[in-house]
Amino acid sequence: MRILGIDPGLGRCGFGMISTTTGADAKLMDYGVITTIVDAPIPNRLKELYESLTLLFKETKPDVISVEKLFFSKNITTGIVVAEARGMVLLVAAQNDVPVYEYSPNEIKKALTGYGAADKAQMEEVVKMHLGLKEKPKPDDAADALAAAITCGFYYREGPTVQKYEFSNTRGKKYSRRKAR
Amino acid sequence: MRILGIDPGLGRCGFGMISTTTGADAKLMDYGVITTIVDAPIPNRLKELYESLTLLFKETKPDVISVEKLFFSKNITTGIVVAEARGMVLLVAAQNDVPVYEYSPNEIKKALTGYGAADKAQMEEVVKMHLGLKEKPKPDDAADALAAAITCGFYYREGPTVQKYEFSNTRGKKYSRRKAR
Repeated sequence: MRILGIDPGLGRCGFGMISTTTGADAKLMDYGVITTIVDAPIPNRLKELYESLTLLFKETKPDVISVEKLFFSKNITTGIVVAEARGMVLLVAAQNDVPVYEYSPNEIKKALTGYGAADKAQMEEVVKMHLGLKEKPKPDDAADALAAAITCGFYYREGPTVQKYEFSNTRGKKYSRRKAR
Repeated sequence: MRILGIDPGLGRCGFGMISTTTGADAKLMDYGVITTIVDAPIPNRLKELYESLTLLFKETKPDVISVEKLFFSKNITTGIVVAEARGMVLLVAAQNDVPVYEYSPNEIKKALTGYGAADKAQMEEVVKMHLGLKEKPKPDDAADALAAAITCGFYYREGPTVQKYEFSNTRGKKYSRRKAR
């Protein structure tokens, strides 16, 4: 199974693709980061991100994607932009009919280290070891994305928690409106 | 000028289109609400919203859109989903090359009532009066969207605050990646 982990962000959106059948045999396929132009308006940056993600899905052909659940605690304003960027990831997944698996930061840490409060360095070390790499994957965004992908590989054996959902075609009837008299 | 106000949301996304030249002469063109199926997974609902918004932009042909700035204070979890839905609005605006104007809740209240802490009933009354309607526009989401549109009509006279931004075509070079060795 091809699992694409994504660490959503507008300035830097990390991704990491692994291939695995049992979870324990995860093999690194591809990783990197999508960046957008910092001084462009947010709508244009979201469009850039959307187009890059569309290209990424086309090229990497994931069976499922794995994304960290979002919790806002530190910086609310940054959080809004991250959530908007995350919307692009979920949209492109739905457009490509790829199921989305979500894990909390704690679930990811537990899956990788057995310890819900592992620090960043520990996590990167485990990602490196688990995938049999010589060096830690860089940048951090890509390493975080790979951690999400590996987590999905482990949990996936227990069966999907998210159902695929098919929509009937309702195009043309999608919004109710009232014309001004 | 055709101004499309949007009140982003995943379950209910309000919209309201006005036409105006001076801000004071705003005329109601169209309003309503986009809904998505409540028990579908969020990625599929975002896709539904995206498709409805694309259709809405195609049909209403706005010159600019006006959206309330997002602040999270009450419900953080709902806020994440609203921000993801807001991402769809900004994406579709960028894809249609329509500039986005953003106003804080206070700016909207001040523009309509001269009073930054006006309540919901006062706001709806002003929207109704300003557009010369017999009844308050319903649902609330559409009324909020119209309030954002009217605000934009007033402030727009002072000149655009958001610059249009043109991207050079960077397709195919949009993300840096490393293939696994």
